[in-house]
Amino acid sequence: MLVACIQMEPVIGDKQANVARSLSLIADAAERGAELVVLPELANTGYVFRDKQEATALSELVPGGETTATWSDIARRCRISIVAGIAERDGDVLFNSAVVIGPDGYAGRFRKVHLWGDEKKVFDAGDLGFPVFQMPFGKMAVAICYDGWFPETYRAAAFQGADILCIPTNWVPMPGQPADRQAMANTLVMAGAHSNNMFIACADRVGVERGQPFEGQSLIVDRRGWPIAGPASREREEILIAEIDIRPGSRRGVGADNDVLQDRRPDVYAGIVPCSIAQPG
Amino acid sequence: MLVACIQMEPVIGDKQANVARSLSLIADAAERGAELVVLPELANTGYVFRDKQEATALSELVPGGETTATWSDIARRCRISIVAGIAERDGDVLFNSAVVIGPDGYAGRFRKVHLWGDEKKVFDAGDLGFPVFQMPFGKMAVAICYDGWFPETYRAAAFQGADILCIPTNWVPMPGQPADRQAMANTLVMAGAHSNNMFIACADRVGVERGQPFEGQSLIVDRRGWPIAGPASREREEILIAEIDIRPGSRRGVGADNDVLQDRRPDVYAGIVPCSIAQPG
Repeated sequence: MLVACIQMEPVIGDKQANVARSLSLIADAAERGAELVVLPELANTGYVFRDKQEATALSELVPGGETTATWSDIARRCRISIVAGIAERDGDVLFNSAVVIGPDGYAGRFRKVHLWGDEKKVFDAGDLGFPVFQMPFGKMAVAICYDGWFPETYRAAAFQGADILCIPTNWVPMPGQPADRQAMANTLVMAGAHSNNMFIACADRVGVERGQPFEGQSLIVDRRGWPIAGPASREREEILIAEIDIRPGSRRGVGADNDVLQDRRPDVYAGIVPCSIAQPG
Repeated sequence: MLVACIQMEPVIGDKQANVARSLSLIADAAERGAELVVLPELANTGYVFRDKQEATALSELVPGGETTATWSDIARRCRISIVAGIAERDGDVLFNSAVVIGPDGYAGRFRKVHLWGDEKKVFDAGDLGFPVFQMPFGKMAVAICYDGWFPETYRAAAFQGADILCIPTNWVPMPGQPADRQAMANTLVMAGAHSNNMFIACADRVGVERGQPFEGQSLIVDRRGWPIAGPASREREEILIAEIDIRPGSRRGVGADNDVLQDRRPDVYAGIVPCSIAQPG
């Protein structure tokens, strides 16, 4: 099957234009055969909110809001799945969420677990854990941006049997990052895939918003962590497409006698880290 | 302080030559100001044993064996610390170990926790967990080669307060690895450092032994995961030296408001992975 990551440049506050642009890019990806399309974090609203008030005005119910309905429409029409970042409102609380949509419509949501920088002034931290979604093509988990800095994110997905992890993201440069270096986020994702035998598809945004530059370099990696599409450019909107094989039985160990998930030593970890990482469920 | 990683080419079975070569390289590193010198995995024996009998004949008590005594001598003379791979014998059992030596002699040992490939026919898996050593310069943890494939290794070191993780290694090419690509091990180490705010110093071997090629590409990375020495070549013996700052108070978060160790969400992990990763001890 083909997976697409859409690297785009949302404009803060212009939801109508952002959703319209996303529809055009989704249609393009679907036409090229993608069965799963990943959009960036906060794809319909932009990222750098002035305050919670501005974010609240742009937020929507998930499901029930207009953007989820619009994305569900195109998913149904094209018979595809979509994972896309959205500002979610739930009562007075906002979440930095990703909506999961299948060919038959709304399938669930993920709420960003680890908040970055000023996000804490706007959003509550995710309270739904790391759900795994049974999609038409297989088991899929979702994480958003800074969630990928935590090896527990990849472990949570892998232990629950996810074949692919989708990461809508708005990667920003890390302090002290050498200018000529590939984004550290790319490295984290490659390592997460390799150590968990899992495909990972990251859709980042580009552009500069209210002084905040973004990294681009969207990336799709295979179960070994090697790039199979991207990294994309640092500054242009583009669509990455890669073929992935997640059919049952396609999974192979990292060596003839070694499998990174089976070779774990929970007995040892438990002796060192209090209540350590246990066996996969 | 300066850390050195010695990339060398041990010869299988020729302990005398290997130790002599290591002494010359250690002296060189010490002369260049290194306070801590890391040697590869199984630096005194070579790696590809024909069988357990051959490995047993080459193994030594730790401490008590000749190689540990020789390395302790040079450490005392040069007032340095050494972490070096060694085949350890303990009764009838063999371990793929690293001996830890300070300026005053033997300081402890680490036994490889995750065994790779045919190692299982020769060695028992490590039964000492991931000890953290209080060295003159700070807290240090040790891992060997395939241990670095497991995020739990880095977490165990970080949770116990290690400022630096030393990795004696004999990296081999991964199946499916594109020939022009930097070793996946480099990626795993960069990610491990970044997600745990910890220096990592890897000393790999080079050469081909009984048909098994090794990767070289020894590497020292800073707390952000960026290389500060290396990656070394794929085929030549060489010494990497880098300056690291592990003085108390030198540790900084990954962003103005973010620290990768403090930002963990054990409450969430515990809800997903049975008996999940808990708070640092």
